[in-house]
Amino acid sequence: MDDIVSRLTRELGPDAVLLGDDVRARATGWGRPGPCLAKAIVRPRTTDEVSRTLRLCWEAHQPVVPQGGLTGLVGGTVPAEHEIGLSLERMTAIEAVDPATRTMTVEAGAPLQAIQQAADEHDLLFPLDLGARGSCTIGGNVATNAGGNRVIRYGMTREMILGLEAVLADGTVLTSLNKMLKNNAGYDLKHLFIGSEGTLGIVTRVVLRLREKPKSHNAALVAASDFANVAALLAAVDGGLGGTLSAFEVMWEPFYQLVTSEPARNRPPLAYGHPYYVLIESLGSNQETDTERFEEVLGQAMTAGLLADAVLAKSRAERDKLWAMRDDVEQLGRLAPIFTYDVSLPIPTMPGYVDEVRAGLAAQWRDPKCVVFGHLGDGNLHVIVSVGNGDLPTRRKVEEVVYGPLRTRGGSVSAEHGIGTEKRKYLSWSRTEAEIAAMRAIKQALDPRGILNPGKVLEATEIHARA
Amino acid sequence: MDDIVSRLTRELGPDAVLLGDDVRARATGWGRPGPCLAKAIVRPRTTDEVSRTLRLCWEAHQPVVPQGGLTGLVGGTVPAEHEIGLSLERMTAIEAVDPATRTMTVEAGAPLQAIQQAADEHDLLFPLDLGARGSCTIGGNVATNAGGNRVIRYGMTREMILGLEAVLADGTVLTSLNKMLKNNAGYDLKHLFIGSEGTLGIVTRVVLRLREKPKSHNAALVAASDFANVAALLAAVDGGLGGTLSAFEVMWEPFYQLVTSEPARNRPPLAYGHPYYVLIESLGSNQETDTERFEEVLGQAMTAGLLADAVLAKSRAERDKLWAMRDDVEQLGRLAPIFTYDVSLPIPTMPGYVDEVRAGLAAQWRDPKCVVFGHLGDGNLHVIVSVGNGDLPTRRKVEEVVYGPLRTRGGSVSAEHGIGTEKRKYLSWSRTEAEIAAMRAIKQALDPRGILNPGKVLEATEIHARA
Repeated sequence: MDDIVSRLTRELGPDAVLLGDDVRARATGWGRPGPCLAKAIVRPRTTDEVSRTLRLCWEAHQPVVPQGGLTGLVGGTVPAEHEIGLSLERMTAIEAVDPATRTMTVEAGAPLQAIQQAADEHDLLFPLDLGARGSCTIGGNVATNAGGNRVIRYGMTREMILGLEAVLADGTVLTSLNKMLKNNAGYDLKHLFIGSEGTLGIVTRVVLRLREKPKSHNAALVAASDFANVAALLAAVDGGLGGTLSAFEVMWEPFYQLVTSEPARNRPPLAYGHPYYVLIESLGSNQETDTERFEEVLGQAMTAGLLADAVLAKSRAERDKLWAMRDDVEQLGRLAPIFTYDVSLPIPTMPGYVDEVRAGLAAQWRDPKCVVFGHLGDGNLHVIVSVGNGDLPTRRKVEEVVYGPLRTRGGSVSAEHGIGTEKRKYLSWSRTEAEIAAMRAIKQALDPRGILNPGKVLEATEIHARA
Repeated sequence: MDDIVSRLTRELGPDAVLLGDDVRARATGWGRPGPCLAKAIVRPRTTDEVSRTLRLCWEAHQPVVPQGGLTGLVGGTVPAEHEIGLSLERMTAIEAVDPATRTMTVEAGAPLQAIQQAADEHDLLFPLDLGARGSCTIGGNVATNAGGNRVIRYGMTREMILGLEAVLADGTVLTSLNKMLKNNAGYDLKHLFIGSEGTLGIVTRVVLRLREKPKSHNAALVAASDFANVAALLAAVDGGLGGTLSAFEVMWEPFYQLVTSEPARNRPPLAYGHPYYVLIESLGSNQETDTERFEEVLGQAMTAGLLADAVLAKSRAERDKLWAMRDDVEQLGRLAPIFTYDVSLPIPTMPGYVDEVRAGLAAQWRDPKCVVFGHLGDGNLHVIVSVGNGDLPTRRKVEEVVYGPLRTRGGSVSAEHGIGTEKRKYLSWSRTEAEIAAMRAIKQALDPRGILNPGKVLEATEIHARA
């Protein structure tokens, strides 16, 4: 047995360290059924055990790959043969829900859905929501600064985190479990760990900001005849609905057709033939007056010529159906093999961007499929491309077509999925040399031996390579 | 002339470098009329000039103190004799307001009020607002992560910044002018500079997130008979008003009496005799229905026994009067000499905290004055103490009384004002050794020579002391 593995086994006990087939049988990410190549998976039960694990790995210059619910899309949780996986799967406690401070303190392995339910049981809301809610963990949400469906109202994961505890590469426990909305006592260290994909520390506990639970829901699906109308509609509903707009999800027609045609379970609530369909949702405090307002604002938009067609959800069931349609991303499998992208760019530049991507694809492939949808209110588009046979050379060519036009538009190769290994090559297309150098300086400062998730986000450092 | 000063003068031209009496005549912070002791004040006109200034200072191991509107309260902009001030006063341009992306790009020296007005002219809102709006600059707001009156609705300055440009200690220009709500392409470097009080870089440009301008305003002043009712009221109005609650400002009775009695210009809108007075404000989208909702929610609170008394602002003038009363902090001068504190702590612990502070003061001084008010919805209290003659030994004793009881409550010695030099001694009362060590590691990584605002937030490093 590898020396570090036997030391970890002695330190934490054999049930905490998976080996051999128990490791091989594990997945490593969404759409990555395995085998997991890691030389061991360590499953600590406490922050202290995470600390002791990292201390031993630090001493041995042993690279470690933190793992949460394994629903990431960019390879951020995939270990190589010489690496050890550190899974938070036994640290799932919801330690405290405190309605008085409207906070919840949880271990990092707690699944998002369990957190949503615990908040709900206290008549409060934890607003982060995304398709993987049943499997993803809050630690993974923090590590990737997850976005999801309600960013326009409640922000990214970053905005929902008041404090956290992280273990640094050398095993130092950094406990920063702030519960206040305001705390300007020195640097706000939590931001180092949020969105850095496990490369600067392993998050072990989190203090979440809870919100009052909405008492009213309204939703509508509308169609628009050009992109300028979509943009004007966003401004109109955001202003008109006060602080209650909670989603503004745009579907380009090819996506809408896909999720409303056989074998999809949903039928089209609005006729085909419009270039854009928008799912609009508001969450408020009074069903009667909020519905009145919602209908009034959409009526004004109709009068102003922004809408080509519209249908209001008249019940909870109708609203759920609109969301089920929007969330039915499994239909994308009908286009397989596919490449999926998650980009952000200034809203006014979107139509030109999509045109350029389509033209770029058409220049290289016959009959390319390009399906676009996304959280438009956040500047975030998901672009799904189906061309050729899905092999790696094709993929690289598609990446150039999809990521290239972002460069002149100030866009980002990752809106919400992160960089991992999948997009590392393109980080420099969204960030300057000076920015990447500053990231390296931070990595070097907090993990000088480069043992934490090496090669994710940034190239593995030479220091680690020497170890 | 000092060697570095002459080099800077040659590099930027004589009008960019103030010397002698021109320096002495300057203020260094709020309530600090001067003289400014710096050996020079450099006033660059462009990011490139900031970069050239820092490169020269870096080479010379010359400490630099960045300066904005000089309205800070914690000594963060005060230079010593051997230091050079770097003022952003000639970089005040509002470079672009872009309604399509709802962003504004400004130079760091732009005053907050000019930014508010520019947003307003485009029928948009930049929601940051604080008393110093006419003098403070956005660069200073960013450096201190300023809070203010509407944090409960719109967050701190941090939440309003999409991108920024900063110059690092060695003159490297880090341009990260992101305009999207979502960008997970690597570490989010802006958070390093927000709230680090000019110790990690000098912010030169900022991309601001603008919001739709509210179309309705409602406000009320209410009285409550005990703190549990105040806390329950917060939950009730936050839930009942949907996303529109924009302020929940609590005044303990002594503060209320101070701002409603001669020579203050305002008379008490509600009778004296209640322990707590709360200014509640909502900003929404429809005056008629929002007012109806506002009155309904307060009516329910009254029925539930949460309110001892209430008065609604029936007009813009009445609302402005309520705010003028709350903002009339000049009345605190009647208690001079005073010490002012800005703490945050979990809301449920507040009454016990205030009792403990009062008891601590009464144990040491005869007839101490302790006036409390604050942004309660954010967990933020301002505590004003008047005892003894206001000398430094008295002040240190008062600090122990005010900051001490925060330690067991997980509170912070700085909610929104920052640490500067004034609170440096107490940083360890709100942050662990591990947290402070991590802050030092970051400082060391970005400013290894310790030339940027040395001694602010953290003790000056040995490295700088050796230089």
